[in-house]
Amino acid sequence: MADGKNPPFYLGIDLGGTNIKAGVVDDHGKPLSRADVPTHADKGPEEGVRRICQAAHEAVKSAGLTLKEIKAVGVGSPGPMDLKKQIIINPHNLPGWLNLPLAAKVGEALGLPAVLQNDANAAAFGEYWAGVGRDVNSLVQFTLGTGIGCGVVIHGHVLEGEHSHGAEAGHIRIALDHPRYNATGLYGSLEAYASAKAVVERTEEALASGEKSTLSKIRDSGEPLTAKAIFDAGAAGDPLGSRIVDETAFYLAIGAVNLMHVIDPNIVVFSGGMIAAGESFLNKIRKYVKENALPVPAAETTITYAKLGTDAGFIGAAGCARSKFGTSRS
Amino acid sequence: MADGKNPPFYLGIDLGGTNIKAGVVDDHGKPLSRADVPTHADKGPEEGVRRICQAAHEAVKSAGLTLKEIKAVGVGSPGPMDLKKQIIINPHNLPGWLNLPLAAKVGEALGLPAVLQNDANAAAFGEYWAGVGRDVNSLVQFTLGTGIGCGVVIHGHVLEGEHSHGAEAGHIRIALDHPRYNATGLYGSLEAYASAKAVVERTEEALASGEKSTLSKIRDSGEPLTAKAIFDAGAAGDPLGSRIVDETAFYLAIGAVNLMHVIDPNIVVFSGGMIAAGESFLNKIRKYVKENALPVPAAETTITYAKLGTDAGFIGAAGCARSKFGTSRS
Repeated sequence: MADGKNPPFYLGIDLGGTNIKAGVVDDHGKPLSRADVPTHADKGPEEGVRRICQAAHEAVKSAGLTLKEIKAVGVGSPGPMDLKKQIIINPHNLPGWLNLPLAAKVGEALGLPAVLQNDANAAAFGEYWAGVGRDVNSLVQFTLGTGIGCGVVIHGHVLEGEHSHGAEAGHIRIALDHPRYNATGLYGSLEAYASAKAVVERTEEALASGEKSTLSKIRDSGEPLTAKAIFDAGAAGDPLGSRIVDETAFYLAIGAVNLMHVIDPNIVVFSGGMIAAGESFLNKIRKYVKENALPVPAAETTITYAKLGTDAGFIGAAGCARSKFGTSRS
Repeated sequence: MADGKNPPFYLGIDLGGTNIKAGVVDDHGKPLSRADVPTHADKGPEEGVRRICQAAHEAVKSAGLTLKEIKAVGVGSPGPMDLKKQIIINPHNLPGWLNLPLAAKVGEALGLPAVLQNDANAAAFGEYWAGVGRDVNSLVQFTLGTGIGCGVVIHGHVLEGEHSHGAEAGHIRIALDHPRYNATGLYGSLEAYASAKAVVERTEEALASGEKSTLSKIRDSGEPLTAKAIFDAGAAGDPLGSRIVDETAFYLAIGAVNLMHVIDPNIVVFSGGMIAAGESFLNKIRKYVKENALPVPAAETTITYAKLGTDAGFIGAAGCARSKFGTSRS
């Protein structure tokens, strides 16, 4: 097409507990539109599917297209899920959405072929297809939020695993002794150390134990402490903030190294809110990776930030629809 | 053929620092012969290649075949290696075998197409093709020896990684604080906790700290303590031996769980000398896996021992030759 949009077009949905993001993507992974609607997850799955379709319609309209011009739709959703059955099982942040054939429901409502994918896998596939990984063969991505999501793409294929638990690397155990655990009750996991929630918890523990910090003002004011405030304090030279940031970089590096020693990808990508901490944080992670990885992967693996921001989820979901129903990766 | 041998035939080599094992394998992965020769690694790579060929000739002869009836040869070798270049770089237990194009050298000397593979990957592929994994889609295997080797096979493909460091999972870090490290100098790795060498070290430390055990007799006699003696003591009810065995099962379970949360295979296989400890040890590993994995992989993943014993290496190497030069997995 004359305006640089390359058909066929795909629709991508990024379903979250709070918001649904939808977008139309062209055959090169370029987003042509975006739409956001609140999920209202508590109103149940039927209303949820209706809202997904509302976001889809808005995105298609805003791209100047009709549904007939869309080849297929991909839906990224929080897990756990069964990708063989294409159902979500009982996502923590979608209470009551039990054993839901989400792809079939959305596909039926929109009249499109549809595919379901784990949200972190979809985001990783987005960066692989159209973002920071567009020139590589394989990629590991960690998405840093309340928890830690992970996605692995090897030679164009999302590592789904045999039981839809491939790349659940927020749950790899990096510590034997510590009593930290995450939402799933697993002790010593990467997520229990390095998620935004864990950053806040570790800081609160240090403050409670009497460690001096400018952050105690926030705590004493009754405001909730955030990972952002802690990273800001670290950047401003606060000793506790600096230590927490440094330790977080170390934990994330151990996560990266462990995946380098299993997957051995071209690149390890960090995405999510915490990457607002910028280049100095990334450089700390890189330093600890070099210190803890075997010589060859330490020298050869690129450690970097994601490029697509919050678009990665719907772009990748659309890319998964393209992998299944469209042309293969060019 | 009338005698149940299914052509074409492949030659497999399992190169170790001490011994070279060779065998001829039929198209179904059935070994038709075996030959062993000492490596004499210290005599250098030229002599080493000569000895590999000697083992190969013996294996072919003992199978009642000639080299003309062999389709290709696979060579499993200790790493590190560069699989794209098909060279071994500088294996720890093959001193001076530097940047050696091992597959080309062996192939040239035997007049056969040849392929190089990492030894632990080859062993995993052997079990996948012709052993405990013959009916599954994907497999993770840990080979327990002085170190811990690992191999991953997904849908018929060995996970080689982009820099020939796929499935180096003996080097994943499972502990943050401990000063243990392995031969490569990496702290807190699975290998540093659960290899046969680590089992002995942990026991010696406990004895040195004054812990009471029947094992102190061995130490006081000046005999070297072995993992076997420690497992035997544990089986006989010695409290220290029991504790060390139990902790080793726990560490191996954490290794298994971490791979289940990355690869999510059908089965996790343990092989190597330590599996002589039998079903009770395996059941301890299974118990800790169930306690530490996410619910779905905990319920669905089979944890088991390897079936092919020390044949797995040459069978798998032959299988890699078959994957590259022969028919695909039936």
